[in-house]
Amino acid sequence: MAVYTHQTAPTRYVETTGFRFAYRRFGKRGGVPLVFNQHFRGTMDYWDPAVTDGLAKSREVILFNNAGISSSSGQAPTTVQEMGANVIAFIKALGLCKVDVLGFSIGGMVAQEITTQAPDLVRRLILVGTGPRGADMSMSRSAEIFAGTYDPPEHLWLAVHFSPSPSSRAAGLAFLERKLRRKDRDPEVSEQAAAAQREAVAKYTAQRECALDYLKNLRQPTLIVQGSNDVIIPTVNSYLLQQNLSNAQLVLYPDANHGSFYQYPELFVSQAEQFLTSALQDGANLQPSERLPFPSVISAERT
Amino acid sequence: MAVYTHQTAPTRYVETTGFRFAYRRFGKRGGVPLVFNQHFRGTMDYWDPAVTDGLAKSREVILFNNAGISSSSGQAPTTVQEMGANVIAFIKALGLCKVDVLGFSIGGMVAQEITTQAPDLVRRLILVGTGPRGADMSMSRSAEIFAGTYDPPEHLWLAVHFSPSPSSRAAGLAFLERKLRRKDRDPEVSEQAAAAQREAVAKYTAQRECALDYLKNLRQPTLIVQGSNDVIIPTVNSYLLQQNLSNAQLVLYPDANHGSFYQYPELFVSQAEQFLTSALQDGANLQPSERLPFPSVISAERT
Repeated sequence: MAVYTHQTAPTRYVETTGFRFAYRRFGKRGGVPLVFNQHFRGTMDYWDPAVTDGLAKSREVILFNNAGISSSSGQAPTTVQEMGANVIAFIKALGLCKVDVLGFSIGGMVAQEITTQAPDLVRRLILVGTGPRGADMSMSRSAEIFAGTYDPPEHLWLAVHFSPSPSSRAAGLAFLERKLRRKDRDPEVSEQAAAAQREAVAKYTAQRECALDYLKNLRQPTLIVQGSNDVIIPTVNSYLLQQNLSNAQLVLYPDANHGSFYQYPELFVSQAEQFLTSALQDGANLQPSERLPFPSVISAERT
Repeated sequence: MAVYTHQTAPTRYVETTGFRFAYRRFGKRGGVPLVFNQHFRGTMDYWDPAVTDGLAKSREVILFNNAGISSSSGQAPTTVQEMGANVIAFIKALGLCKVDVLGFSIGGMVAQEITTQAPDLVRRLILVGTGPRGADMSMSRSAEIFAGTYDPPEHLWLAVHFSPSPSSRAAGLAFLERKLRRKDRDPEVSEQAAAAQREAVAKYTAQRECALDYLKNLRQPTLIVQGSNDVIIPTVNSYLLQQNLSNAQLVLYPDANHGSFYQYPELFVSQAEQFLTSALQDGANLQPSERLPFPSVISAERT
């Protein structure tokens, strides 16, 4: 069988529940595959090959377009919950019973919904540049940045993903070069689908009353990664996620914005790899009832 | 020359500025040594051998007792600033011009003062379970936990360093076993020195007006590590440190308390090792004036 990479993996299709999903599968087979959930307006071509190929060295990587996005059929739904349900249908259509899930930005919200709706399907979770239901978006500059004009147009993604420092900007230009290498590219996301994504994020982050309660039920070992100053989904949301999940490691990168893992792809791949393979992480995956009282049990422990 | 470890490194002494400092040096020579700054009431014997020996595989490790602590002479000062000045004198007395500095708890505060007072002496900084000047201690349970009675007495350190979960507690018992292996032990910290440390932390954390301003001048690449729920120095302080330092990576471990790096020693050693050897980290070590305006430069860049 041919060994595919980010650049060479052919686009394949799978049909289910009324949708035809476009996907690409590559990397080392035999373990639990890692399913990548993309950000606002992104297609399979928007991932950083340094990240996907980096992780594909040790595991199978699955990129796809969700329903209504780019080369996948159907209409993009206007809730994150429905987007999550569509991904579950896609994963099951591939015949997979257990996956690791990575989600970036709105894809991180979708990843949380996948895990909430199908907890047995998900082994471990990686959340990059995202936030919980009811995320604090008050400091987000997303609307302003996406409304801007850029020349060349792909420099929009420097403003979205990278910081204004010279080193971050240089990392951004290197990322764009890697990202644009593949020639047989997915069609761009339609305005209609982008509007649906925007509406879904607005509803998701507008939740207030007990918004974070659902995080108590996400027991999968989770790695949360964000930049020190994310102007799209403010950084404090990753801190909130970590503080409200029972088994999450948080990593914040310096001088970094929304695309922090594209700024430090080798560091990210190494930390993600360590997280996905580590046996240590599962020990902390506790039901609240398994927790001992604290700290009285320690002084009461006379024998 | 004999190859020493945490268990076998002999206690040596160096004299300077009126103090005789006790220290132990071991590990791989030839690079930048890593100087460990200890927590409240701790001596050289309080470090986790899994951490010190783990890091000593790739670099020289220096443990010591600061002035007035255990086997070092003199009186412990009542300010973190003076403690930092004493460490600088100690490092210079060893003839070292460049070191990496690790600080844990009050030792992390001392590490920040070392770096503030002698920026050219410090290459990189690792801050574990600590906070900045003016740290928010409102949720700290330190007073209550240190006032408790424990049987055996060393179980105090389970309450200080580990969480109430069975897996964290098991990690705590394993840590105590490792910690107590060495037989020729340092004398315990005197009540007088402990009172001085307590006073120093109280003054340091009482600062309010522009308390965080000094962090702007700490440009060293910094790795910040803390547990998800640190009951001694509340976890939010590590987030504050990261958000106010120009070049800091933050890692928060799940289900962990003040001694998070003793709960996950292999993960910590691997991440610290990666941080200390990474070339990527230095790129972000910027003067604020080097920052480009954001994001206008991007759309203004028509050629």
